[in-house]
Amino acid sequence: MPKRTTYFVSDGTGITAEMFGNAILAQFDMDSRRVRLPFVDTVDKAHQAIRQINHSFDLDKHKPIVFTTLVNPEVQEVFAQHCQALVMDMFGRFVRPLEEELGIKSHHRVGRFTDISKSKEYSDRMEAINYTLAHDDGQSNTDLASADVILVGVSRSGKTPTSLYLAMQYGLKVANYPLIPEDFERRQLPAALVPLKKKLFGLTILPERLSEIRNERRPGSRYASLENCRMEVHEAESMMRRAGVSWLSTTTKSIEEISTTILQELLPGRMAVQ
Amino acid sequence: MPKRTTYFVSDGTGITAEMFGNAILAQFDMDSRRVRLPFVDTVDKAHQAIRQINHSFDLDKHKPIVFTTLVNPEVQEVFAQHCQALVMDMFGRFVRPLEEELGIKSHHRVGRFTDISKSKEYSDRMEAINYTLAHDDGQSNTDLASADVILVGVSRSGKTPTSLYLAMQYGLKVANYPLIPEDFERRQLPAALVPLKKKLFGLTILPERLSEIRNERRPGSRYASLENCRMEVHEAESMMRRAGVSWLSTTTKSIEEISTTILQELLPGRMAVQ
Repeated sequence: MPKRTTYFVSDGTGITAEMFGNAILAQFDMDSRRVRLPFVDTVDKAHQAIRQINHSFDLDKHKPIVFTTLVNPEVQEVFAQHCQALVMDMFGRFVRPLEEELGIKSHHRVGRFTDISKSKEYSDRMEAINYTLAHDDGQSNTDLASADVILVGVSRSGKTPTSLYLAMQYGLKVANYPLIPEDFERRQLPAALVPLKKKLFGLTILPERLSEIRNERRPGSRYASLENCRMEVHEAESMMRRAGVSWLSTTTKSIEEISTTILQELLPGRMAVQ
Repeated sequence: MPKRTTYFVSDGTGITAEMFGNAILAQFDMDSRRVRLPFVDTVDKAHQAIRQINHSFDLDKHKPIVFTTLVNPEVQEVFAQHCQALVMDMFGRFVRPLEEELGIKSHHRVGRFTDISKSKEYSDRMEAINYTLAHDDGQSNTDLASADVILVGVSRSGKTPTSLYLAMQYGLKVANYPLIPEDFERRQLPAALVPLKKKLFGLTILPERLSEIRNERRPGSRYASLENCRMEVHEAESMMRRAGVSWLSTTTKSIEEISTTILQELLPGRMAVQ
């Protein structure tokens, strides 16, 4: 396959264009150099971006692919006229049918993420991040009752990144609690968690994969040995089954998939925004 | 305006559909209940989703809006035939022109995020998150030299969420360091940071906004007083200017915008993936 260059161009961060463009490109078996060009919000910057794009046409000898989320009509126009590429105008394609259906005009405002200046939303997100940091890895039982979600699982099963993702993306207060050999000996969930069973969700993982991950951190240790990983995973799964805690295996799942499943199970209301 | 319901439907998490759909809807002054329907990856689940969508047509008396990122052709077909909504088929619109330009067929695989089972990528992301957690708020100077980015700024200027975002989304090791009254008295950056000036980036914030944020945490304190916030911000900005550290004001910026600006300034190579 020829080498192509793909650009993600936006008046904003370009994160939406990149995420969407990558999902489309994932449908093709093709190598592509990928470049994000953010904050292209003036005609001057548009010409600068187009010079870069057209230059890679000369180098690659193949048309670049350009995904745009541009709302400024003048900038859009410059792209339509001067960009020597397959331009996928993501807004243009969908805004017009929506205008017709809704019977109103779009206002061509640059798309914004959670705005730090929207006090309430921002402070909720910050509070969730702080809560989640303070309740990582069973560090604190203080105020555990105000957690939205409490993750349990053996060490290195994916609790910390999942907790942080839920806090950052959904403003959820997430505590996470490791299941450790002491719990397995007592054959019971940590005492602090028992009254909060409705908030619990378990993460598990294939022992083989767990052993690999632990070996990167503590090579050759008993902690990382396959035998020990098998025992811990078996004990943790038995405990969750006995306690009636829902759980999923993280082995082949991304943080985003794990988080979406947890939301569906524990907080289905968070899948809808009123 | 009439109340509409918008659905984001996907064979995967639906996060891409939701992010993109929200960017489109931000172009319209319209209230809309928004519902994400993930993991719609069988014909049965498609019919179930469509029943829910068509039911909200009955309730709202207005056509629902549906953004889909469906790759399974059978599921797409069910939507095309039975869904009583304005369906925005995000993949359909862009995959076909790409097939023509590239001269290859798409393979209709469900889009995946960073796959936990791709050992290297996952362990880099995990390592970055662990590093960033251990180096939050000046907690540790150990191994500061291996940071990709070191953020500085007064307390509550947005360092922690920005650090975590950069670690989670880009696998960067990010340390963050508060600038505190002792630094202002010495009129110098913390000693540990001086040799690492190329990795430094400063965050600042309007004193009025800072005082608001701090007052939510410690109401009425001297720490939160506008006078103290003015002094700290002034001193921090002077210090960064003297030290030649690039900085930006987070006051009206989202975490995503701040992070994109930092990448452009410090690690432009990270804006392109080879």
